[in-house]
This record gives sequence, C-alpha cells and structure tokens, in this order.
Amino acid sequence: MSHAPAHSARTRVRRLPERAHYEADTVAAIIDAAMLCTVAFQIDGIVHAIPTIHWREGEHLYLHGAKGSRMLKALSAGEACVTIALADGLVLARSAMHHSMNYRSVVLYGRFEPVTDPGCKLASLRAFIDGLYPGRWDTLRPISDKELNATTVLRIALDEASAKVRDWGVKDDEEDLDWPVWAGVIPLRTVQGEPVMEADSVGREPPPTRLG
Amino acid sequence: MSHAPAHSARTRVRRLPERAHYEADTVAAIIDAAMLCTVAFQIDGIVHAIPTIHWREGEHLYLHGAKGSRMLKALSAGEACVTIALADGLVLARSAMHHSMNYRSVVLYGRFEPVTDPGCKLASLRAFIDGLYPGRWDTLRPISDKELNATTVLRIALDEASAKVRDWGVKDDEEDLDWPVWAGVIPLRTVQGEPVMEADSVGREPPPTRLG
Repeated sequence: MSHAPAHSARTRVRRLPERAHYEADTVAAIIDAAMLCTVAFQIDGIVHAIPTIHWREGEHLYLHGAKGSRMLKALSAGEACVTIALADGLVLARSAMHHSMNYRSVVLYGRFEPVTDPGCKLASLRAFIDGLYPGRWDTLRPISDKELNATTVLRIALDEASAKVRDWGVKDDEEDLDWPVWAGVIPLRTVQGEPVMEADSVGREPPPTRLG
Repeated sequence: MSHAPAHSARTRVRRLPERAHYEADTVAAIIDAAMLCTVAFQIDGIVHAIPTIHWREGEHLYLHGAKGSRMLKALSAGEACVTIALADGLVLARSAMHHSMNYRSVVLYGRFEPVTDPGCKLASLRAFIDGLYPGRWDTLRPISDKELNATTVLRIALDEASAKVRDWGVKDDEEDLDWPVWAGVIPLRTVQGEPVMEADSVGREPPPTRLG
C-alpha cells in the first residue's frame, strides 16, 4: 500500500499536529500491531464504545461476532469510529506538565459493510486465524456451515484514517534541565508468557504467533 | 469501595453475560491496571472516539488535557462512553470457532464534570503523577499557576459501569477434544523495558512505577 488515505475534516489531527501521520503504511502497521480496537457507534442517540478483536486485510479492517450481536447490527446501520491505541513508553520529565507517554494510535471513521458471500467470509476468517497463528487454519477441525452461518463478518475501508505517534524523549523547559530529578523514558511492551496447554491437548507444541 | 454501581439498561452486558461483572472493586481494578482509555462522544451527531491517559481517585475516573482541547470541550457538553480493554491471553482451541482471547474490559457511561477549584485540580494532578510514580510529585519542579490554569481536568463518576472478564481456558466442543492440534492459552502481559535516561538528566535513578 502506498496511497495516503483521504485527509478529511474528521481525520485532521487538531491537538499536537506534530504527532500526526496520514500515510496508509503507518496506519496499517499500527492496526497490525494491536490485538484489540474500540468501536464507537450510536443507537438512538446514545454513544456506545465496545472493545473487540480486529484484523486487517489490505485496505480494510475486519470485525467478527455472533450473528445476533447488537453491536454488529448497529454497525450495519450507521457510521462508526474505530480507535486503536498502543502504550509504548512512560515519559518522565522534570516538571509535571511535561510528563507524557509514547504511544501509537489510529482513529478511523466510516461505515462497516457486511461480508455476506460465504466464500469471502470463509477466506476472511482464515486470514484472521492465520494472521495471528501462521498456518493454523489447516490444522484445525474444519469449520462447519452452521458455524460459518452463525458468524457475522464486517469490514470498514481504511479511507478516512489518521495515526498519531509519539516516539521521542523528554521535552522539558530549557530552564528546568538541571532540576535534580531523573528524566527519561521507560519503554513498555507486550510480551507472551509461557503457554499453558490444556490438560487434554493432543498437540505437543504451541504454534508461532504474530506477536513472536 | 464495596457498593455495586447502578446496573442500568446501558451497562447490562448482553453478549456473553457469563463474563459480566458489576462490582465496584472489579471495575476499579481494571481501570487502575490500564494506562489508556478510549473516550467516545458526539459532536453534531458524529461519533468520535479518542484514546487518552486516565487515572482514578475513589469513585471517579479522571482525564486531563490542554484547555483548548476540542474533546474536553465536547465532554463538558454531553454524554460520554469510556472504554478500557486489556488483552491478557490468546486462547487457542481445536476449532476456529472456539478461538478466543482472555481480557479485562470496562465500559462506563455518564457525563464528565470539570474540576475547576484550583486546589482540587492541583490535588488531582498530584494524585495522577504519584499514582503512576509514587512520591514523584514532590521531587519535580513545582507546577506554576500558568501551567495549572492551562490544564483542564475532568472527572466522571463510576456509577454506571460494567466490566467484562474472560480468564479461563479453552472451551472446545466435546467431540473435538482429541483433534490433533495444540490447544491452550498463551498469556500476554505488559512489561517495562530498560529505562532510557535523558543524556542531560541530573537524577541518577529512575523512579518506581505503578506497573512495578
């Protein structure tokens, strides 16, 4: 992907614009690095925001869920705003005011569309599983028509998206630089712990995951 | 805290209610474990959802930001929905359908109110810094009246909140239990990396943080 998403009034970053990015590659990389997004929408004028797992294929972000889900029904009926945020570091300055965080975030506006064709839906779910666990789909008990039918898959184009990134050190006021307190960045990252195998698992080895 | 938040039509968990929790202590613990929340609100009928750092004092969740912030202005004018989500584990089943995640999440509805009294605002910002870095406030260059005045602090009561937690193993269909593939949970957690001191930092040691 090399095109830039449309830069609309909604996606223009107003607060701290020096942290704004609109390139499609930056947006896609942040979406791929996160496991969870928050989907905001309204029902009868009330705003709801629900965390859910997502995946990306090309220039769309995908969600899935049970067919009867209230959220998925509402998303088929109106506009949504999808947010992703990753905390990358604690920024400790010499003054309270300049304490900050390093982070990567994406805010995406638009309308979800259902993936209704069974073949497309199947391919998407396969991309979801294999995206997290390369090669796993073919090792699983095959999905049934009933399961496929009970699952709703929705997607939203990455057309109207912006990213915000802070990935630098401390920005203190010049006159505070010799204040006698520790200043710097404490990095944060998500790691995998030791896999916990089900007692009755027949497989011997956990699969590799996207997270490494 | 021991009371349960009001259990309203908005906070009743409809999807997978066996994962729902309404106890105030559970909600508070999830809020405290997260660095970032997502705040959803509407401006002229358009839903926005913005990630931001938060903290908790007693039965309120707090946000802060620059005085001119469009988000903070909108939050003073209408209802909001605050979401927190922590990814705790990847759940790998024998069928695609039963793959899942372990997670803790909170969804909170209500209306933010500004903390306008300068003394209360100061106490809140101190609680924010010292909550992340115990004892740090007193070691910093003191906050100026100008900085305090340029900062907006808002809070929202935890009255209308629900939590959702999945923290168990794989739930496969009985007839799939001998399917020859690895099944289990891969835990996820956030860890701190090696602190990166500013080249000109006078302090010698990074402070302890809430994350450990």
